[in-house]
Amino acid sequence: MSTVHGTQDALLQHAVELDAADPLAGYRDHFVGTDTDLSYLDGNSLGRPLKRTVTDISAFIQENWGGRLIRGWDEEWLALPEAIGDQLGRAVLGAAPGQTIIADSTTVVLYKLVRAALAAVKDPARTEIVLDTDNFPTDRYLLEGIAREEGLTLRWIEADPAAGVSVEQVREAAGPSTAVVVLSQIAYRSGYLADLPAITAAVHDAGALVVWDLCHSAGSVEIDLDAADVDFAAGCTYKYLNGGPGSPAFAYINSRHLPGLSQPIWGWMGRKDAFEMAAGYEPAPGVRGFLSGTPAIFGMIAMRGTLDLIEEAGMSALREKSLKLTAYALELHDAWLAPAGVQLATPRDAERRGSHITVDHPDFREMTAELWDQDVIPDFRAPQGIRIGLSPLSTSFTEVYRGVAAIRDLLARP
Amino acid sequence: MSTVHGTQDALLQHAVELDAADPLAGYRDHFVGTDTDLSYLDGNSLGRPLKRTVTDISAFIQENWGGRLIRGWDEEWLALPEAIGDQLGRAVLGAAPGQTIIADSTTVVLYKLVRAALAAVKDPARTEIVLDTDNFPTDRYLLEGIAREEGLTLRWIEADPAAGVSVEQVREAAGPSTAVVVLSQIAYRSGYLADLPAITAAVHDAGALVVWDLCHSAGSVEIDLDAADVDFAAGCTYKYLNGGPGSPAFAYINSRHLPGLSQPIWGWMGRKDAFEMAAGYEPAPGVRGFLSGTPAIFGMIAMRGTLDLIEEAGMSALREKSLKLTAYALELHDAWLAPAGVQLATPRDAERRGSHITVDHPDFREMTAELWDQDVIPDFRAPQGIRIGLSPLSTSFTEVYRGVAAIRDLLARP
Repeated sequence: MSTVHGTQDALLQHAVELDAADPLAGYRDHFVGTDTDLSYLDGNSLGRPLKRTVTDISAFIQENWGGRLIRGWDEEWLALPEAIGDQLGRAVLGAAPGQTIIADSTTVVLYKLVRAALAAVKDPARTEIVLDTDNFPTDRYLLEGIAREEGLTLRWIEADPAAGVSVEQVREAAGPSTAVVVLSQIAYRSGYLADLPAITAAVHDAGALVVWDLCHSAGSVEIDLDAADVDFAAGCTYKYLNGGPGSPAFAYINSRHLPGLSQPIWGWMGRKDAFEMAAGYEPAPGVRGFLSGTPAIFGMIAMRGTLDLIEEAGMSALREKSLKLTAYALELHDAWLAPAGVQLATPRDAERRGSHITVDHPDFREMTAELWDQDVIPDFRAPQGIRIGLSPLSTSFTEVYRGVAAIRDLLARP
Repeated sequence: MSTVHGTQDALLQHAVELDAADPLAGYRDHFVGTDTDLSYLDGNSLGRPLKRTVTDISAFIQENWGGRLIRGWDEEWLALPEAIGDQLGRAVLGAAPGQTIIADSTTVVLYKLVRAALAAVKDPARTEIVLDTDNFPTDRYLLEGIAREEGLTLRWIEADPAAGVSVEQVREAAGPSTAVVVLSQIAYRSGYLADLPAITAAVHDAGALVVWDLCHSAGSVEIDLDAADVDFAAGCTYKYLNGGPGSPAFAYINSRHLPGLSQPIWGWMGRKDAFEMAAGYEPAPGVRGFLSGTPAIFGMIAMRGTLDLIEEAGMSALREKSLKLTAYALELHDAWLAPAGVQLATPRDAERRGSHITVDHPDFREMTAELWDQDVIPDFRAPQGIRIGLSPLSTSFTEVYRGVAAIRDLLARP
């Protein structure tokens, strides 16, 4: 800190108290590098590795891959996409077994899910895909591509960049022409938490199907896909689930859509009796029919460690800590950043807040590089936002203090 | 061995001599588990891990992922799909830089490449995809799916199950109705090595485009895609390139097809200026426009070790050893297996032989499980084939001796 005065001491004191009272504080020690002064504020983009991941993957290479060799597929790996999918469904998604599977990248999973959703819509008058202007780029781009190839129209909801998509906006946009609505539960930029149950109901009232992107919500907020009767959902596992850079995505397919599920990339792993290698594609029954190619095993080994911790701690405890972390970050923003001309681009309402906050300032593009040099690591989102992502299992309150103090200090430079 | 006699001694002696004279013998020590008696005959399905992979990946998790965190993307990882693609192009594929990229699974890469190839065919009279009855299941299934969605017809070449597809068969099948021809350079079952340059020329003579599946050839035979003027190629990296179970695939796109390349899965990683996250999809220039989602980094770390070794040893040395390995396996087959009623399902001609041989016998389905229990690991391919896959960097001649001797002994049981 460049200066010390009463407010700062009180804010630091508050962080120390919050850490002391944090029932999840012990989980931080499970992660690599949390014993340093580095302030990691980007667990919403790439989660830290668990220490266990180093030993799990070393053992996997030596003993499973290296020792069991091709036998490993039959003995364990072929079952992992569904086994870890079910664990993810239970621990994180509120999904009964048999509806969740690990596969591909988020982009490819979304492509396959949206195509499957469109195939499930039988009414030829439904020629529109509803999406919003602030959805994550991959979602927007791939829907443009699908609309072009399928001859469909995109209907854009104008999202509030400092918030997100409201139930009313969805009610207005979705109607008798709507085939599918694709939205993110948490907006990647603002951190706005959409009202998933109410929006899902609104989409269904319009006779359409919904595909939710859970990239920023899986592992940070409580989700109950079955209770909300969601049709399809996708998400990534390298953020709050710590699967590592480029770890595979997940797909949720409501069991009512599994019979007759039609996804476009017909591969051997999604075929009935894959190793018979017989003539003619027939999808495997259940969620396995969603698979295409050979599943990526490394990322699944890594994410399993985090799923075990989440099952132990419970998502309600993670959500509770996440809200305390973002509340504390808002406190620092109000004390230090707002007076320096920073704009908050995140809703204050706890009901609508995900696990990251975004703050805007014209100097933030350049400043992010300087922060990274100082081992203070948020990320930058164009045109001028710094995202402060707070991962409930690995982020401490004093870590947030150190990070936001560094932003404050850069803003205070003459 | 259950019995010892002169022939066996001579065959063992031959293996010992071949190992002693093998200029690549030292590479075997680079792999995990090669100091045991296990006989691994399935490097054509899942390559062994390099010892270096254990330390490379541990260091990656601790220092890169764990230490650099999200900074790693900007510092190194974003460039890996093209950097490792170029190394693969140079060391293995005969591809000049800028045409090869690591991405997705083989199935998804093939889907995107075939769709891109079809988009590049401008003549509406070309409504057929040519493929063969013995291509790998994923290739057949995904072409069925693409034909259905695009309203195209499949024209099947009847492949000889103990060989593969000849140039003449392709000349006969491809004509003015052909859009795209999709074939494997090495047949997954018989190990037949197709005449890639002549078939590519035949496809071009018919005015069509070719997509080669190199899964069983990349890292086992010399390939020169640029010289043969191949249009598109795909392959996997977990066989002879040792990327680990489910490591990402590669795509080769001839540079003449890069301008205007149209692949169907529009994701953020394939967009121009990905991190601007701007409105509207515009593909990145060059081979990067082929990317869709976030690249899987673990598998790329693993395959890099093998690419370094191949660059050092040279593919011609690997091919030379591969031919000696399969010749020695044929010698054992002739001495022990043929007399026991086993049928060879692989061409003997060195020009048409890949790096695995397949032998058929009605008892092989059950026997494979017994072999695995004895740490003798070929794989089984329906209806009655054992594949003996020989990986030039990691397989020794005495390992082949031990493995085939175990098959002989099971066949000799009363």
